[in-house]
Amino acid sequence: MKKVVIAGGGFAGLNAAKMMGKAPGKVEVTLIDRNNHHLFQPLLYQVAMAGLSPAEIAAPIRSLLSAFRNIRVIQANVTAVHLEKRQLQADCGNFDYDYLLLACGAQHTYFGNDDWEKYAPGLKSIEQATEIRRRVLEAFEKAEIESDPKAQKSLLTFVIVGAGPTGVELAGAIGEMSRFTLARDFRNIDPKRTRVILIEAGPRILPGFHESLSAKAARQLEKLGVQVWVSSRVTQVDLQGVELGEERLRASTVLWAAGVEASGLGKQMGVDVDPQGRILVESDLSLADYPKVFVAGDQARFEQEGKLLPGQAPVALQQGRCIARNILREIDGQQRQPFRYLDKGQMATIGRSRAVLESGRVRLSGFLAWLAWLVVHIYYLTGFKNRLFVVIQWAWAYLSFRRGARLIVDREWRIFKG
Amino acid sequence: MKKVVIAGGGFAGLNAAKMMGKAPGKVEVTLIDRNNHHLFQPLLYQVAMAGLSPAEIAAPIRSLLSAFRNIRVIQANVTAVHLEKRQLQADCGNFDYDYLLLACGAQHTYFGNDDWEKYAPGLKSIEQATEIRRRVLEAFEKAEIESDPKAQKSLLTFVIVGAGPTGVELAGAIGEMSRFTLARDFRNIDPKRTRVILIEAGPRILPGFHESLSAKAARQLEKLGVQVWVSSRVTQVDLQGVELGEERLRASTVLWAAGVEASGLGKQMGVDVDPQGRILVESDLSLADYPKVFVAGDQARFEQEGKLLPGQAPVALQQGRCIARNILREIDGQQRQPFRYLDKGQMATIGRSRAVLESGRVRLSGFLAWLAWLVVHIYYLTGFKNRLFVVIQWAWAYLSFRRGARLIVDREWRIFKG
Repeated sequence: MKKVVIAGGGFAGLNAAKMMGKAPGKVEVTLIDRNNHHLFQPLLYQVAMAGLSPAEIAAPIRSLLSAFRNIRVIQANVTAVHLEKRQLQADCGNFDYDYLLLACGAQHTYFGNDDWEKYAPGLKSIEQATEIRRRVLEAFEKAEIESDPKAQKSLLTFVIVGAGPTGVELAGAIGEMSRFTLARDFRNIDPKRTRVILIEAGPRILPGFHESLSAKAARQLEKLGVQVWVSSRVTQVDLQGVELGEERLRASTVLWAAGVEASGLGKQMGVDVDPQGRILVESDLSLADYPKVFVAGDQARFEQEGKLLPGQAPVALQQGRCIARNILREIDGQQRQPFRYLDKGQMATIGRSRAVLESGRVRLSGFLAWLAWLVVHIYYLTGFKNRLFVVIQWAWAYLSFRRGARLIVDREWRIFKG
Repeated sequence: MKKVVIAGGGFAGLNAAKMMGKAPGKVEVTLIDRNNHHLFQPLLYQVAMAGLSPAEIAAPIRSLLSAFRNIRVIQANVTAVHLEKRQLQADCGNFDYDYLLLACGAQHTYFGNDDWEKYAPGLKSIEQATEIRRRVLEAFEKAEIESDPKAQKSLLTFVIVGAGPTGVELAGAIGEMSRFTLARDFRNIDPKRTRVILIEAGPRILPGFHESLSAKAARQLEKLGVQVWVSSRVTQVDLQGVELGEERLRASTVLWAAGVEASGLGKQMGVDVDPQGRILVESDLSLADYPKVFVAGDQARFEQEGKLLPGQAPVALQQGRCIARNILREIDGQQRQPFRYLDKGQMATIGRSRAVLESGRVRLSGFLAWLAWLVVHIYYLTGFKNRLFVVIQWAWAYLSFRRGARLIVDREWRIFKG
């Protein structure tokens, strides 16, 4: 019976655990995560944009794995890994392992300007998503009671920094929400006057997609009222808005979707990492000097045919499964197999009924791409209950132009007196 | 065109606004609330117990009233009322009124021991509900990794202070959740060993109900493993648990459902209030010296046939409507009518499929009462979409013994580094 420890219950960790759960006689698995829930990250922007409730895209890791009696789930923070001692250290105690899978993911990076974070939150956790939701909805509420036109304009200006899929999805959703969902609810402001500005340092949005799709996505965003500023670099973020070199843009809401960096665990362990903190791995996703330690998902740096694999759910999922398979093969005395990413394509939504999709040589945009996006995301959403709910909520939002979760909830729990 | 200002978007304020919204030629309504959402309070305990998501029992006041063009909604804190100047003061500005409706509700009171609040949160807002959910779920998570049996016992002890409907509903839900929902998910603890203790200072639980129903409710709770301690007064609450005179009960989770006190606005205004801060009103719910100022819901003290009306949703709803009707009558030159509460009865649920119900001389308990409870609550739940969702979620929870919203979300928004 080999002891397997998994750090992180994202797509990589969860799928590795599920595969090893089917081999109860061979492995004993401990999965450690700082949250009690697995998060369906590709839909997190929907929570930030009040389209879905947190519980619809998150499920307790414990109950997702409760059928597997050889798996235990621990909610704790991983603090260090001692490679020589084969021990993982968490704030609740130490865990010895025969095999270790590191899948701790990534978080936003502000390129050395950590103080920008409070002005421009990123979108990686449920907490951040509800904070973004609070900021966006509160900006409209404040604009409604603001009599100074200049201040109102700043309240109705939303800046999104970074035009990868997340940035594009946030910008499209804010553009659409202001034009359709909120338009009829306000009296003193015209939500249609909302400015949504998507800023990208590179020469085009969605740099991971084919150029023709970037152009189509930009046109679709513009139809929703989003202004796309490419080749523009943000040099300062503060309470008033953003600076782009000489220019200054007043905006009370700034969202950050510009860069990510892997969990700091790699540096702590003293292994080889790239500038983004991703751990360099072998062809089977193990460490060169410690073959019983694997790394997967956003925490790993893996190149295939000279191209770096992107930080996306399908990559993490396939890596997690490959590692689980290799561990089980090795226990059976078989050879490990190298990891090979099967690229099924990528997509990004733009508002309520448009998307861009790229799969091999197939490139789609508009409504058909959005339908494909919908089917794929519902299919992959973990757990039957969530899937059903999400379909209903979407159908409802689609038919009614409403948003289901327009709650402003206080950031800190606070008691109202008097 | 008369100016009507409504402070508070609960059952009283919302229903008064809806009624006046149908008379666009006569009144111009401003509704002010510190939250952007109307909250269906009777189901708030379901959010605290991870059965429902916040958005399922809360809807933006703005969108509930968007069809009425003579109503504007302002999110702001009401800070004072200047009766002589006929002006309501909020943190975003002042509002002049011809008629004023105060419906600011109530919050928990700790009988002079405000420091108990951080150890024993009450249940009045979405923030408090998600905080209680976090504490309860986290207690189980911590118990799973706790090796000291004494500390584990304390983590698995849940104390609920106060056995009105809310206390009974919380106790029943924790009892059931630990026995059924969580039982299969943990490895190192047996959630069935959870102790749930319901403490009541008076001689019986549910004092507002007939004695026979109190006794039945107590028996039903005991079947779910809840220990009912009546005639027990809590004398101290701290990090370790509670004290009842000489006795000491170690519990890491304590919830407060023991007493409420009206908004402090009454005292600020210098009008007559009772010891709980409720404003004394005339038979038409107006102030004796200021007949154009009305008070409704938990903020008003109203006696009918020598009995004080309880702080419940139906009372607030009927009062709000009565006040709106009287304002419209007066504008039409008609006489006001006194308020009369039509008591349709009261109920409380106990776990997943039991309840007690009292309506006139009809007294029901068990499954039938629970079915009636379900129908009534779904019927009254504001807005079609919420109703549909809640039915599906409940049906799912009922069939699967699962809970849909078992999320532990951080109290403060915090970025995880490394």
